[in-house]
Amino acid sequence: MPDQPQHVINPAHALQHVRDILKAQTVERELATRSAGPRGQLQIDLLKRQQRGLLWREINRLHPADIAFVLENLPLDERHAVWSQVGSRHNGAVLLEVNDAVREGLLAWMDDDAVFDATDHLDGDEIADLVPELPEDVVPGVMERLDPLRRHRVESALAFPAGSVGSLMELDAPAVRADVTLDVVLRWLRRRGHLPPGVDMLPVVDRTRALRGILRLDRLLTRPGDEPVETHMQRDAVFLRSTDTLADAASVFERYDLVAAPVTNQHGQLLGLLKVEAVVDHFQALGASGLLSQAGLRDEEDLFAPVWRSARNRGLWLALNLVTAFVASRVIGQFEHAITQVVALAALMPIVAAVGGNTGNQTLALVIRGYALNRISDGMLRRLLLKETVVGLVNGMVWGGTMALVTLAVYGSPPLALIMFAAMVLTLTVAALAGAATPTVLRALGQDPAYGSAILVTGITDSLGFFIFLGLATLFIVN
Amino acid sequence: MPDQPQHVINPAHALQHVRDILKAQTVERELATRSAGPRGQLQIDLLKRQQRGLLWREINRLHPADIAFVLENLPLDERHAVWSQVGSRHNGAVLLEVNDAVREGLLAWMDDDAVFDATDHLDGDEIADLVPELPEDVVPGVMERLDPLRRHRVESALAFPAGSVGSLMELDAPAVRADVTLDVVLRWLRRRGHLPPGVDMLPVVDRTRALRGILRLDRLLTRPGDEPVETHMQRDAVFLRSTDTLADAASVFERYDLVAAPVTNQHGQLLGLLKVEAVVDHFQALGASGLLSQAGLRDEEDLFAPVWRSARNRGLWLALNLVTAFVASRVIGQFEHAITQVVALAALMPIVAAVGGNTGNQTLALVIRGYALNRISDGMLRRLLLKETVVGLVNGMVWGGTMALVTLAVYGSPPLALIMFAAMVLTLTVAALAGAATPTVLRALGQDPAYGSAILVTGITDSLGFFIFLGLATLFIVN
Repeated sequence: MPDQPQHVINPAHALQHVRDILKAQTVERELATRSAGPRGQLQIDLLKRQQRGLLWREINRLHPADIAFVLENLPLDERHAVWSQVGSRHNGAVLLEVNDAVREGLLAWMDDDAVFDATDHLDGDEIADLVPELPEDVVPGVMERLDPLRRHRVESALAFPAGSVGSLMELDAPAVRADVTLDVVLRWLRRRGHLPPGVDMLPVVDRTRALRGILRLDRLLTRPGDEPVETHMQRDAVFLRSTDTLADAASVFERYDLVAAPVTNQHGQLLGLLKVEAVVDHFQALGASGLLSQAGLRDEEDLFAPVWRSARNRGLWLALNLVTAFVASRVIGQFEHAITQVVALAALMPIVAAVGGNTGNQTLALVIRGYALNRISDGMLRRLLLKETVVGLVNGMVWGGTMALVTLAVYGSPPLALIMFAAMVLTLTVAALAGAATPTVLRALGQDPAYGSAILVTGITDSLGFFIFLGLATLFIVN
Repeated sequence: MPDQPQHVINPAHALQHVRDILKAQTVERELATRSAGPRGQLQIDLLKRQQRGLLWREINRLHPADIAFVLENLPLDERHAVWSQVGSRHNGAVLLEVNDAVREGLLAWMDDDAVFDATDHLDGDEIADLVPELPEDVVPGVMERLDPLRRHRVESALAFPAGSVGSLMELDAPAVRADVTLDVVLRWLRRRGHLPPGVDMLPVVDRTRALRGILRLDRLLTRPGDEPVETHMQRDAVFLRSTDTLADAASVFERYDLVAAPVTNQHGQLLGLLKVEAVVDHFQALGASGLLSQAGLRDEEDLFAPVWRSARNRGLWLALNLVTAFVASRVIGQFEHAITQVVALAALMPIVAAVGGNTGNQTLALVIRGYALNRISDGMLRRLLLKETVVGLVNGMVWGGTMALVTLAVYGSPPLALIMFAAMVLTLTVAALAGAATPTVLRALGQDPAYGSAILVTGITDSLGFFIFLGLATLFIVN
C-alpha cells in the first residue's frame, strides 16, 4: 500500500493500468515465441513467470474493493489471469465485494482448498456474509476449520434471516455501565486493546445487558474524566432489533444521521452494533436495482457474461411482455372491421396507447417511491388514487385537446378528432389509476412492488388504450 | 424527548398520532360551537388555545426529521396548522429536512422574522445548506444577523459550487500533529471541549496544515498513551478534494466503507471533513430520482401539491411523448395502403413495437447504471454495444420464432409469420442498440443520461418497429 494520503476518486485508472499490463504482456509473449523458435520453451516459461510476478505485485497493492472493480470489468480470459494472481490474503475480501454474477464465476475457478484459504483471512461476520454464496459442499469444510469463537460467531449470524439487522450486525460490541466514570471507560478500553472501527459511540447497558442508552465518543473524549457515564450518556438513543429489516434500519440511519446503532433482542438486551457501511451498501444496491427491476432485470448482470446467459436473464420479462402485447393485439383484432373502414384508426391508435403508457408509468414511479419510503399509509392511499386520477383527467383534457387539433389538421375529420379527444381523456385517467393500483396489488400479494411493474402497467395501458379508442370509433363513426 | 432508548422504525405512527389529534380537535371544536351558540365565542377561543398547546407539545417532542415527515404527508390545511405550532428551535432543522416542494410552501407561510429566528438555531454549515433555498430578499437579512465566525463559515461554504464536497463539508475539523503522544491528544481534546459528532478519526497534519494521514479514534482510545501519533496514524488514508462532486465522494465512501474523510484544497491542505450522512442522503435521493427521472419527473413532487401543479410537472415529458408518438403514427400513416389490404398488420404491429420497447429499456437500464457507477470506459463501450446487439439478436430469434408460430396459429398465413419473425429479429437488434446509444449520446451532450431517456428509447423503438414490420410487409406480401 502507498505511504501517503490517497485521492482515489475512480478505480477506473487501476482497471486501465491492469489492462495495459495484460496487453503489453501478451505482445511480449508473442514476440518472444516468434524469436525463440520451437526450442526456446524454457525462455518463454521464464518470461511467463516474470510476467506473473509483475501482475501479482501490481494487483495486490490495490484495495480489495478496487480489485473487485477490476475483476468485474475484465472479459473472462483476462479476469481469470488476474484472479489467479490475487493473493489468498485478499481473496476472501474480494469475494465479498464483487457482485453475485461475477462471484459465481470466481468460485468456479477455485478448488476447495483455495476457498478455505480465502476464509482464513476473514472475521466471523464476514464469513457469515460469504457462506450463503458458497457452493453447498464446501460449507462444512469451511466451518470445520474455524476456531470455536469464530465458528460461534458465524453460527449466530447465520441464525438470523438474510437481510435482517441480526444477520448484518457487528458482534464485537463493547458496552459500558452507567455508574463508572469516563476515565474508567478510557482505562478499560486501553486494557481491552481494540474497538470496532467505524463506530462513534459505546452502548450503555445495565447488569442484565439491557440497553440504557449510548455514550458518544465525542463526549467520552471531551468531557471531564471524573464525571460518570450517567451524566453524559444519551438516554433517548435510537436502537434497532435484530429482527428489523435492513430497509427499515436504512431509513432510520438516514432520518437521524446515524453512524452506528445498538441492536437488541426482543427483551431489549444488547446483541451487537449495526454500522453505517451496511446502510450505504443497501442504498447503493437499491438505487441500482430500482432501475433494473422496473425493466424486469432482477440480478445485477455480469457485463461480460456469455451472451446466452444475458439473453436468459432478460428472457422472462420479455416473455411476459410478449403475452401482454399479444393481448393488446387481440384487442385490436376485434376491431378489424372498423380499421378496414377507417384506416386512419390504425395510425392514430398507438398515440393513445403510448401517452397512456407514459402517464401510467409516471404515477407508477411516484407510488413505488412512496412505498419504498414508507410514505403511503392505508388512509392516504384513497386520497392518492383520487389525486392521480384527477391529474390524469387534467392531462387528458390538455393533451387530448392538442391531439384532437392535430388529428383535425392531418385527417380533416371532426368526428375522428372528437373521438381522439374522448379516448385520450378516458385512457389517461384509467392509466393513472392503473399506475397507482398495480404496485399496490403486487404489494398486497407479497411481491416487490417495483419488480417488473412497468411492464405490467404498459401492458394494461396498451390494451385499454386500443380498446377505448377503437371501441369509441366503432360506436360513433363506423357503420 | 423521551427518557429511554427508542425503537422508531417508522415515523408513520407519529404521523397517525398527529392526524388523530387534528381530527379529534376538529370534532371538539364543532361540538363546542354547536353547544355554545352564537354568544360563546370566548369559550371557543379558550378551547382553541388549549388545543394549540396540546398540538405544540406533541409535535415539538418529535425529532426534526420526523416533524418533516409528518409535514410532507399532511394535506395543505393540516400542514399549515402543524407548521404554525413547530417551535422556532426546530424550524430551521425541519426546513433542512423537508423536500424542495414542501419547503417552498412552508417558507411562503413564514414572514422574514420567522425565517431569521429559524436560522438562529442552525450552525454555519447548515445555514449554508439552507441559504440557496431561501427567497432572495431574505438572504441579506439572514447574513447580517450572524456573528462574524458563523458568517465567515457560511460564506466559505457558499463559495463552493452546489453539490461539491466543499459545499457540504463540516468545517469544524480538529487536526492533530504526528509528533505528539496519544495522551497529549486526549488532553488537548478535553481542553478543546468539543468534537464534531459522527466522526471516527482525526486528521493528522503538518505545520503547514498539509494532510499527512488520519488517526482513527479506535486507535486513539485503545493504544498506549505514551506512544506518538506517528506510530498509530494511517498514512494511506483516502482523502477528498473540495472540488470533488458528491457523487464521486459517495462512491469512495461506499468502496472503502468510510464514516468520514478529510477534505483538502488543491495544495493538499486540510479544509474540513465530509461525513457519511451526506453520502447516505445522496444515495437515498439518487435511488428516488433514478426511478422518477426515467419517467420524466425531475423534481420530487409534493404528494399533496395542487392538481394543476402536479399536472404541469408531468406535462413536459408527456408533450415529448406525444411528439414521439405522433412520429410513430406518421410512420404507420405511410403504410395505410398495406393495412387496407392486410388488416391483420394493424393488430400485429403493436407486438413488434412493444417487445422492441422492452428490449431497448432493459439495455438502457444496464447502460445508465454502468455510467452512474463509472463502469463504462470508452474502450468498453464498443464491446458493450456489440454484446447488447448480439443479445438483442438472440432474443429476437427466440421470441420472434415464438411469435411467428403464434401468428401462424391465429392467421394461418406462412408469409405473415415469416415477416413477423424477420421484423422481431431486426427490431430487437436495433432496439438494443438504441437502448445503449441514447444515454451515451445524452451524456456526450452534457445531459443527465437517465433523465427522460426511457421516453426517447420507447419513441425510437416504436417508430422503428412499425417501420420495419410494415415495410417488410409492403415489400413481400402486399401487391
